[in-house]
Amino acid sequence: MRKIGIEDIDDIALGSSLLGSGGGGDPYMGRLEAIAAVKKYGPVELLDIDEVPDTWTVAPICGVGAPSVSLEKGTNGVEYPKVRAMMERILGRKLDAFLLSEAGGMNSMVPISAAARAGLPLINADGMGRAFPGIQQDTFTLNGVSTNPFIIADEKGNCTVLTTINNDWTEEIGREITTACGGQVTTLASPMSGEKMKTSVVVGTVDYAQKLGRIIRTATDADNPEQFFLGESGAFRFFKGKITDVLRETRDGFNFGRVTLEGIGEDKGKKAVVEFQNENIYAEVDGEIVATVPDLICLVDSETFVPITTENLKYGKRALVVGLPCDAAWRTPRGLELAGPAWFGLKDVEYRPVEERYAEFSKEESHA
Amino acid sequence: MRKIGIEDIDDIALGSSLLGSGGGGDPYMGRLEAIAAVKKYGPVELLDIDEVPDTWTVAPICGVGAPSVSLEKGTNGVEYPKVRAMMERILGRKLDAFLLSEAGGMNSMVPISAAARAGLPLINADGMGRAFPGIQQDTFTLNGVSTNPFIIADEKGNCTVLTTINNDWTEEIGREITTACGGQVTTLASPMSGEKMKTSVVVGTVDYAQKLGRIIRTATDADNPEQFFLGESGAFRFFKGKITDVLRETRDGFNFGRVTLEGIGEDKGKKAVVEFQNENIYAEVDGEIVATVPDLICLVDSETFVPITTENLKYGKRALVVGLPCDAAWRTPRGLELAGPAWFGLKDVEYRPVEERYAEFSKEESHA
Repeated sequence: MRKIGIEDIDDIALGSSLLGSGGGGDPYMGRLEAIAAVKKYGPVELLDIDEVPDTWTVAPICGVGAPSVSLEKGTNGVEYPKVRAMMERILGRKLDAFLLSEAGGMNSMVPISAAARAGLPLINADGMGRAFPGIQQDTFTLNGVSTNPFIIADEKGNCTVLTTINNDWTEEIGREITTACGGQVTTLASPMSGEKMKTSVVVGTVDYAQKLGRIIRTATDADNPEQFFLGESGAFRFFKGKITDVLRETRDGFNFGRVTLEGIGEDKGKKAVVEFQNENIYAEVDGEIVATVPDLICLVDSETFVPITTENLKYGKRALVVGLPCDAAWRTPRGLELAGPAWFGLKDVEYRPVEERYAEFSKEESHA
Repeated sequence: MRKIGIEDIDDIALGSSLLGSGGGGDPYMGRLEAIAAVKKYGPVELLDIDEVPDTWTVAPICGVGAPSVSLEKGTNGVEYPKVRAMMERILGRKLDAFLLSEAGGMNSMVPISAAARAGLPLINADGMGRAFPGIQQDTFTLNGVSTNPFIIADEKGNCTVLTTINNDWTEEIGREITTACGGQVTTLASPMSGEKMKTSVVVGTVDYAQKLGRIIRTATDADNPEQFFLGESGAFRFFKGKITDVLRETRDGFNFGRVTLEGIGEDKGKKAVVEFQNENIYAEVDGEIVATVPDLICLVDSETFVPITTENLKYGKRALVVGLPCDAAWRTPRGLELAGPAWFGLKDVEYRPVEERYAEFSKEESHA
């Protein structure tokens, strides 16, 4: 057990933003809110999964919506007690702890704010080990945890409780509710026992995020910042370039788009393309696929290594395109079915682990 | 108290279909379902409002969606016990009776089916005295009854409980859920005491519908069927014509459209236009407004007087365009705000009672 204090929040937000793979919400608003909550209510107790009693009832809390909306329309704080009270009323018992539903700039901060306000501990784990656009794309679903009751609250005071026949329907109906509520809502769902949680999560997410955040923050002090960032984080470097084009569309409650980069430095003369649906889902360099979901694809500022979320992609920004391996759960047949290239409509794109693709890619590069 | 038996159902469905003003659902599916339910579970007890104890808890049950969808995608019976169980769980008490949320072909039948299956009485009243497209366009809203909890079930087994800050938001979010669930759902909402119900409803709807149904059914036996139908029902006759054009669009969970009729018989050479949003909302003859919401505008077959719902408008059908006065509640300032021409986006269209418009219209006609 340790405490999350104000001094921890920046690194957690920064590192989560890398894990967010372009999505998971912009950390800006969430960070301010988490700092304010911890300042007011005190540090948040962070429990490793083996510190959680099996008999506890725990649930992931997060924001759902199109990230571009969350920048303009934040939470106002009424949502957290509202979804919690509704959950406890339906379950007929108190919640014992929150956990993260995903790792992402905003969605690493929402649980800290909620836990601080509620005086509940937070569990050092999440349901993705990254961020994904679909509500049902989590390790809870992979492990048979129902989203029921899926509780949605907006900042106006509307609250919806969804009981569905499966988690795909939760995505289907929940997404429409999100749109009707203005594109950004807070959800509390998938309540489970401490025992079930232990076998249904990606472990150690908050620690991992904080470590990555520290690496990003300190990289610029290193002799060779890029080498330091890549070496310490374990990220695979595919490309360095300048953003020359961003296609973007908000539809069905998601941000869809594609960003094109022209190579700079050693990548001069080459071109990279990254596609996204809230999160980055596919990257190619000169027509060669270098990474796909469920592995993590991240664009980071080429000087500061600060992750660039998909809603912040802008013409002229200089970025590194890097990849990180996803949690092993996503590489199983069921994991790939739920979050592999085909789920995202990427036809004829085979999934191959990012480290394999990188080995091949770097071999070709050194021959070139 | 009387019982609704199988022999009553046809007239109630037929008359409600007239009150439905082109909407309220096609009676075909609902009628079959109500007959099957009464055959299996026995006649339904119909209570006048003064027979309902003040301490009872009662709630309107109905179908919500685009009528055109309900023809292809009916209920399958699982919805009624599901919404009732959810309502009783949330309220912490049993429901004592159902009532109609609106008068319409399908929505007069849904409460009969539900009451028969549940063994509960039905109250001889509804929340509109007609049908309206909006969830919040009812006399419950006019009388300060909240829709909370608004319970939605689909035929697949998904169930949503909506708690909103006002009934307009219930429409906003509920409509999106309806669309996500496939365009047609069953709802149970606006629970209220017997006492509150008595001052918040349109009284005697089932009796009135049955009376209108009997008039329609027996009109063709009369010496002058049209005169009999108009005289007995009190409907104002504006036009007789042949449908020459139907524009139709299903969007945002509603059926929108406009039907054009060319005059036949004494109306030869004239033209009528009727606009609809699920229900008919506006009618003009040769450019002169003859009726608008909240009054009832109905197209009925020119020979059989069977009401033609908006989803059944077809080229070549011969129809009478008639009007009926709405309940007095809709003619108050608040009633007109909630269901007058402006609500439906009819710009610069003033509401004037259909009987006034008819008096003027028939005076001009006799001068012509």
